[in-house]
Amino acid sequence: MSQTVDTAAMPADPVGSDGASARVASWLSEFEAALADRDVERAAGMFATTCFWRDLVAFTWNIRTVEGREGVADMLGQTLERVAPHGFHVTEPPEQADGVASAWIEFETAVGRGRGHLRLVDEGAWTLLTTLYELKGHEEPRGQARPRGAEHGVNRERETWLDRREREAAELGYETQPYVLVIGGGQGGIALGARLRQLGVPTIIADKHSRPGDQWRGRYKSLCLHDPVWYDHLPYIKFPENWPVFSPKDKIADWLESYTRVMELNYWTNTEAKSATYDADAGEWTVTVEREGHPVVLRPKQLVLATGMSGKPNVPDLPGQDVFRGDQHHSSAHPGPDAYAGKKCVVVGSNNSAFDICGALWENGADVTMVQRTSTHIVRSDTLMDIGLGALYSEEAVAGGMTTEKADMVFASLPYRIMHEFQIPLYDQMRERDKDFYERLEASGFDHDWGDDGSGLFMKYLRRGSGYYIDVGAADLVADGNVTLAKGQVDHLTEDAVVLADGTELPADLVVYATGYGSMNGWAADLISQEVADTVGKCWGLGSDTTKDPGPWEGEQRNMWKPTQQEGLWFHGGNLHQSRHYSLYLALQLKARAEGIPTPVYGLQEVHHTA
Amino acid sequence: MSQTVDTAAMPADPVGSDGASARVASWLSEFEAALADRDVERAAGMFATTCFWRDLVAFTWNIRTVEGREGVADMLGQTLERVAPHGFHVTEPPEQADGVASAWIEFETAVGRGRGHLRLVDEGAWTLLTTLYELKGHEEPRGQARPRGAEHGVNRERETWLDRREREAAELGYETQPYVLVIGGGQGGIALGARLRQLGVPTIIADKHSRPGDQWRGRYKSLCLHDPVWYDHLPYIKFPENWPVFSPKDKIADWLESYTRVMELNYWTNTEAKSATYDADAGEWTVTVEREGHPVVLRPKQLVLATGMSGKPNVPDLPGQDVFRGDQHHSSAHPGPDAYAGKKCVVVGSNNSAFDICGALWENGADVTMVQRTSTHIVRSDTLMDIGLGALYSEEAVAGGMTTEKADMVFASLPYRIMHEFQIPLYDQMRERDKDFYERLEASGFDHDWGDDGSGLFMKYLRRGSGYYIDVGAADLVADGNVTLAKGQVDHLTEDAVVLADGTELPADLVVYATGYGSMNGWAADLISQEVADTVGKCWGLGSDTTKDPGPWEGEQRNMWKPTQQEGLWFHGGNLHQSRHYSLYLALQLKARAEGIPTPVYGLQEVHHTA
Repeated sequence: MSQTVDTAAMPADPVGSDGASARVASWLSEFEAALADRDVERAAGMFATTCFWRDLVAFTWNIRTVEGREGVADMLGQTLERVAPHGFHVTEPPEQADGVASAWIEFETAVGRGRGHLRLVDEGAWTLLTTLYELKGHEEPRGQARPRGAEHGVNRERETWLDRREREAAELGYETQPYVLVIGGGQGGIALGARLRQLGVPTIIADKHSRPGDQWRGRYKSLCLHDPVWYDHLPYIKFPENWPVFSPKDKIADWLESYTRVMELNYWTNTEAKSATYDADAGEWTVTVEREGHPVVLRPKQLVLATGMSGKPNVPDLPGQDVFRGDQHHSSAHPGPDAYAGKKCVVVGSNNSAFDICGALWENGADVTMVQRTSTHIVRSDTLMDIGLGALYSEEAVAGGMTTEKADMVFASLPYRIMHEFQIPLYDQMRERDKDFYERLEASGFDHDWGDDGSGLFMKYLRRGSGYYIDVGAADLVADGNVTLAKGQVDHLTEDAVVLADGTELPADLVVYATGYGSMNGWAADLISQEVADTVGKCWGLGSDTTKDPGPWEGEQRNMWKPTQQEGLWFHGGNLHQSRHYSLYLALQLKARAEGIPTPVYGLQEVHHTA
Repeated sequence: MSQTVDTAAMPADPVGSDGASARVASWLSEFEAALADRDVERAAGMFATTCFWRDLVAFTWNIRTVEGREGVADMLGQTLERVAPHGFHVTEPPEQADGVASAWIEFETAVGRGRGHLRLVDEGAWTLLTTLYELKGHEEPRGQARPRGAEHGVNRERETWLDRREREAAELGYETQPYVLVIGGGQGGIALGARLRQLGVPTIIADKHSRPGDQWRGRYKSLCLHDPVWYDHLPYIKFPENWPVFSPKDKIADWLESYTRVMELNYWTNTEAKSATYDADAGEWTVTVEREGHPVVLRPKQLVLATGMSGKPNVPDLPGQDVFRGDQHHSSAHPGPDAYAGKKCVVVGSNNSAFDICGALWENGADVTMVQRTSTHIVRSDTLMDIGLGALYSEEAVAGGMTTEKADMVFASLPYRIMHEFQIPLYDQMRERDKDFYERLEASGFDHDWGDDGSGLFMKYLRRGSGYYIDVGAADLVADGNVTLAKGQVDHLTEDAVVLADGTELPADLVVYATGYGSMNGWAADLISQEVADTVGKCWGLGSDTTKDPGPWEGEQRNMWKPTQQEGLWFHGGNLHQSRHYSLYLALQLKARAEGIPTPVYGLQEVHHTA
């Protein structure tokens, strides 16, 4: 789960920056005047005919990209009066390259303060990003506004930090109710919980594991993050300079556990959510959880499912599974290779988990066969780091002054509609760089692809969240024949073998179903009801009408970090980058509701698919 | 335990910076030429007649300030050939104010790389700071050199991060020996341990408590740090922006515990050091510790006592202590006020601990009397933050681009010999600002002082480590008579009272001896022998010949972070600032020895006092 970025989004050539300053200043002041006059048509006319305005919460109380002058006009028509945007200004000198002027901007709305990014072409604005970063009167207590800690003076009613913290932990969920309940305490729930804590929104994070980080600890033992450290920072506390490029799973687990502690999150371990129902009149959920074996009924106003963007495991239902005598389990339940030295192992699937598991089994001396059912996109990790991420998330980027926060904004500034155009050339470079590797791989019979339109890994991630492997070494095992490659669909199992549709019989002591995951709304079906899951519809995907990402075009990840068709129900997830960045916008949406700030949603997504 | 800084050390007026650049460049190039020619007299002649060269490990393998051209010549005469310093250059444009040009510099030695600071007056160098920050070939793995984490490729001998970490933790101290044993796992031991871990020096930190941070948790419940957050960062991981200004004790404890974990320190909890002997021939200590009740014999080459700069508690031996029926204990063993509501409490002493304990007891409804034996220096916390620390350690300083590392270097650049001259005017300002407060306090009969020479709190801290209170509110209790003030020496105790030398009888259910601490070499007497403690002599103090800091002049803190008269024995301690900054120099000294790099010590301190 990684992403690559458009180097074109980076100012390549600061020549002509003087001209850029004047161009941007003039555009911003005209734009502000049109907005002040509430003149929607004039404002929309300042955009190029091909244009994209991406708004993260600031105008729309939604995560939404509008396209074309009509899209801009529609959005402004419905939001302008209420949002009352003003005070647009640049925060650093604009730059110019290839006729495109680009600028970092700030602005205010009636209720908050925003940051954004603007790209101007001759015809007007080509891309505009507007994001909310804080609500007026509800600024986070940091920097100058950080808490004092000690209460100086003498006070016979003094409650110490520890007293207060312990009282809060004891009362929340019993005497007092959380405003937000987050189900799932992986990096997503933790990052969101940290932001809500800073915003003063009473929150419980419930997780079934014994310790924060167990979501990682419990996975196969050789697992390391596939994304590099610069991409993985949590909000508020950055990894130190000595942190490994690719965090080993137990190390990231320890970090998450420590982070949960020092950020003072109300994190309920050993807690399983059993059922949830929404009372629309009361605007409140009734959620029954089992905490340390004891039922507790919680009544949060907002319910966030942060149980992993991958959703529930897809376990295929195959004839013969009941007679098979060996071990069989989904990749998410795979205990690692220790018990399988010398055993015959069949791994069904050929994406990230399948490769990682095959590699670990092989390293442990197992006899391993991979069953490839459909083609896979593979990129070598080093190549992805250098060509895909290096401009924004690397030691070089940091040395060049690129902060994590700025990199996130650069990334967010490029509309999904055109992102693949910037990705395709990067993958062409990768194909060239690793030519020999791909030739060897294909010679082994492995079906390899570059995505429907050649746009590679990150577009696959955004569109379908599957279909790829970031190669950290195991691809060579297949290319070199150390892991046997079989191809086709599984037809059935026998007592001691997996049988493919073409009749090939693969003897097996172990079958691992690395067969992926369903949509996140499957969790809602389990916890709430199938009806609510269907009301909400499919999570993830952009509507690109490519494999496993059916249209119509949505332009943002379906149902992620934004209002859904079910009031009070939210989905949060994704990789560490997304958990970090989008948790801000979800937290602000929740905070606004907690404070009773009106949050009329522009462009609430429609539902086209139930899963 | 705080410090105030000279605003004069900050460039007040960047006017004339062009002139400064030329002046500094010319001085540095002449200096480098003289050093290259090994011409000690020429190099020393480039200093002003009144001059100070402070070296932290780079030239002297010691922490040492030499004074005057003779001092410079002596130091260079003994070190120049071996150190082979070169490559002096400025790292940012020098500045100039009041005729003093000041510059940040870098340089190299035969074995390492250094940073420093130079102040030039017309006559030549007035102050020079040289510090070592890394050893060539032993650079810390961070930034570009950070570990990779994942081992890409496939490897049947793979050991995961967790395997390796667990194996190391299981073997160290049993199958393998630590090179360094640190006794005491408070902030000092932890900061040093983190640096040694990064330098790859096998280290065990042994502490008697059950969890890292218990050193703070166990203290009285209202305790918060008296120093502000900007001053308190640990190495590698900074407190986040939302961290309180004054950390509550349990919060800093949680931070230290988490830090210990994520920095992967080999921290032995529930471990008491029982005895230690040094085998000079083998160059090795034999240290018996009791870990979780089981004896373990360790054989480190280097032994660091990081048991607190305060040393062992001073408990007065008074007639009648055996007949007194109430509770009596040293301040370090005071359990907090909970058991003493409505009780008569006598606190002997009038410094930080005494005031904090009096305040907490009063808040809890006790009847409290403070016994002042000698005069105390009090500064209000806010005033100290604003006037004393603000220029280097504050939100404003951060906003102005002052990093923690740079602030530490600015602070280190001012020689102790003349520091009081810069402190006196600051305390004059404080006296003026809080005039009313001091008048009220003195009207209550409280004996207040500003240090022997009016140089205030930080000089008292450096010279004697005692004699002051950073007022966070409890001083008003004395000034207003809520806490009764008694004065004089304690003569004896009766069954139910403390009796002063003048016959005053103070009825008491509780007596707290807030009577301070001995010198750190007292720990060496307990653990090793009185003979070794006497060989090493008094720790702390500058030799200023002021109260409790007997001469002769040493110019640096005695025995702290540098070689002692006992080979292989080191002392580490101080506040969080000192733990952070000086742990670097101690760690480099230990690393050099671990690597067999010759470390001839220039100017090993002499011993003049046994305690």
